[in-house]
Amino acid sequence: MSQSNDHSRRRFLQGAALGTAGLMAGRAAAQTSAQTPDPAITDLSQQPWTQYLGDGVDARPYGMPSPYESHVIRRDVPWLTADAVSSVNFTPLHELDGIITPNGLCFERHHGGVAELDPGSYRLMINGLVDTPKVFTLQDLMRFPRENRIYFLECAANSGMEWRGAQLNGCQFTHGMIHNVMYTGVPLRLILEEAGVKTDAAWVLAEGADAAAMTRSIPLDKALDDCLVAFKMNGEALRPEQGYPVRLVVPGWEGNMWVKWLRRIEVGDKPWYHREETSKYTDLLANGKAREFTWAMDAKSVITNPSPQAPILHGPGPTVLTGVAWSGRGSIPRVDVTIDGGITWHQARMSGPSHDKSMHRFYYEFDWDGGPLLLQSRAHDSTGYVQPTKDMLREVRGENSIYHNNGIQTWAVNEKGEAENVEIT
Amino acid sequence: MSQSNDHSRRRFLQGAALGTAGLMAGRAAAQTSAQTPDPAITDLSQQPWTQYLGDGVDARPYGMPSPYESHVIRRDVPWLTADAVSSVNFTPLHELDGIITPNGLCFERHHGGVAELDPGSYRLMINGLVDTPKVFTLQDLMRFPRENRIYFLECAANSGMEWRGAQLNGCQFTHGMIHNVMYTGVPLRLILEEAGVKTDAAWVLAEGADAAAMTRSIPLDKALDDCLVAFKMNGEALRPEQGYPVRLVVPGWEGNMWVKWLRRIEVGDKPWYHREETSKYTDLLANGKAREFTWAMDAKSVITNPSPQAPILHGPGPTVLTGVAWSGRGSIPRVDVTIDGGITWHQARMSGPSHDKSMHRFYYEFDWDGGPLLLQSRAHDSTGYVQPTKDMLREVRGENSIYHNNGIQTWAVNEKGEAENVEIT
Repeated sequence: MSQSNDHSRRRFLQGAALGTAGLMAGRAAAQTSAQTPDPAITDLSQQPWTQYLGDGVDARPYGMPSPYESHVIRRDVPWLTADAVSSVNFTPLHELDGIITPNGLCFERHHGGVAELDPGSYRLMINGLVDTPKVFTLQDLMRFPRENRIYFLECAANSGMEWRGAQLNGCQFTHGMIHNVMYTGVPLRLILEEAGVKTDAAWVLAEGADAAAMTRSIPLDKALDDCLVAFKMNGEALRPEQGYPVRLVVPGWEGNMWVKWLRRIEVGDKPWYHREETSKYTDLLANGKAREFTWAMDAKSVITNPSPQAPILHGPGPTVLTGVAWSGRGSIPRVDVTIDGGITWHQARMSGPSHDKSMHRFYYEFDWDGGPLLLQSRAHDSTGYVQPTKDMLREVRGENSIYHNNGIQTWAVNEKGEAENVEIT
Repeated sequence: MSQSNDHSRRRFLQGAALGTAGLMAGRAAAQTSAQTPDPAITDLSQQPWTQYLGDGVDARPYGMPSPYESHVIRRDVPWLTADAVSSVNFTPLHELDGIITPNGLCFERHHGGVAELDPGSYRLMINGLVDTPKVFTLQDLMRFPRENRIYFLECAANSGMEWRGAQLNGCQFTHGMIHNVMYTGVPLRLILEEAGVKTDAAWVLAEGADAAAMTRSIPLDKALDDCLVAFKMNGEALRPEQGYPVRLVVPGWEGNMWVKWLRRIEVGDKPWYHREETSKYTDLLANGKAREFTWAMDAKSVITNPSPQAPILHGPGPTVLTGVAWSGRGSIPRVDVTIDGGITWHQARMSGPSHDKSMHRFYYEFDWDGGPLLLQSRAHDSTGYVQPTKDMLREVRGENSIYHNNGIQTWAVNEKGEAENVEIT
């Protein structure tokens, strides 16, 4: 039901002349004919959806998004891996706002596909250096005190393709291996205390019940600090692809350690050096040596709008720039933004809850002059750490790395409002 | 894959005798055979889901809950209304935890069914006592500064059936006309300022684009204070049944005012007294007079577990009681809980973020002796207000009321752990 006819277009331009240019200018008008009212549009009762009764309350026992939002989905990149069962898909960050990632859009990373556990047969074993080995049912876990906390989960390989320069065109693909949800779970500390940790214990091994039997070594100090044995995300049961019925939450540390379909915690006195902490999830330095146990995710940010998948659809005038920032070491008190490639920086406006090891939302509203832009964001975390440039990271780590790329991202915007992934050197 | 054979059962009882009774006792054991390890179960690799590769990352562009969670749905009560297009369904509070309601489970209330708006044709008109009437497209609204805030939305009729005594058996039905999500939207103040509010303005009318053309009068002070013109919930676009693409957010006030499919804001100098604020959404007092404009939702709480739909499935020993509390006038610093019908009260443990006009989560962990229980919760809000009993409300308002029942709820639990809706008089 487009109102874009010459008549309304003329009226719009009059409206613009009357001082509404800021909101009404350019392509937005051409596309949507924002205007002061005229008879054609003020009779809102003629809109089709007012003419019939819609679905009732019995139509959707579990709701889904509008058909008009069918493009807002997780996307995988088939050429990235040999097989979809050991691969990744990406959160559509450019379509989201606020700090909560809806469960249906949280990115997935599997090493043996999605395990389909029966919660009635679920077991969590605690063994190794403990006084009394235990096997807990889901029912048993529900009898421990619970905590509710909002945390980001970022894959260590997020932005990994970018080490060798701008590769993927869109923040969904450059930064979409992250999600941020509220978890409900039992502190791992309470479960370990129930089994009784022996005095010579220093590490725990977390093991998953999927076909890959994902295993990672975690220092006991971290396990006793803030790790959760979680069974709910954003209020409801974990999704199958996120470890249903139980996953480990390892706040601020690389996602690969957040073992899904958690079936066993073994307590030991040294790391196990399993496949996922040797052949993978270590950084190969220029000298051929590997950095191992790079657990914490450093402060990072990305502008989600405008971005290659989300061009500016209106012309010059008031424009909203937004993005997300996070740190595995604390909260994000400040984000700086530049629209001229770093010549001038502006402090962004933070909006929404600020929690340790959680995603933060920032905005920068500016008057676009219609010229080319070079957009960057730079996160500061509560430890005082400032997000580095990609070149600063390369100086220290060379270009063999895949993991832990938290370098500053640049989008180039042209006069049409189209954005692309570039690097400034 | 049940491990409940005599062998493991005997071992469990030995385990219990060895001091794990608290976690391992009673029906939970019979059902799930919690136990110390034996060969039958320590070989976790024999679990079926470790035997095959699961779905890959291309299987679920938009994820859904596990098939094992198919009972976790919104439920309607067919006899409650004449037609499902002007009716309500209920959030399954007893299946949720934390404070975020997932979008697919947020209760629905419609007066003409779910309007199916095309976001490209969407318009928001601002007219009445303004300097320049405006018609905004969705594109235009995205050019205003945005805010992100977590708010509960409660229907004024939530718990309304309970005025005449315990009626519905389950917190989904007694208290499920509420949800709590993070909204992203534009302060209504900024949109009204763009049109220019005339000096004699005192009220605004919010009008929906559904077949019922829902309309409510709202004082200008509230409109300029904390109301949002929202387009996202929990990070993604509003769901169709929640007003896609745009709804009004009226923090702390009755849900009926949060006009969905928002198409028009008229500015005026007095209330409009439309149908939804006269024939409905007023409280008929004993003397036949109606209380009108009872907007704010007073402090309220309910125990979600145990409850009639969520009995205690394990025997005596450590038991987790949990519930939610909220206030339309501020935050919830404290909730009291009793398990003996009010003879002794205990301060509950709050867990999770605390925000004004948002849901709060509380817990009370206790050792169940296996005897009957009378469970109640009592919320205190940040203004010092304390949640009243139902009888206290009846003294003031009589029993004709439908709306604004924030009285204390009681669940009676028997020796089997089964709970039912009762009243103590």
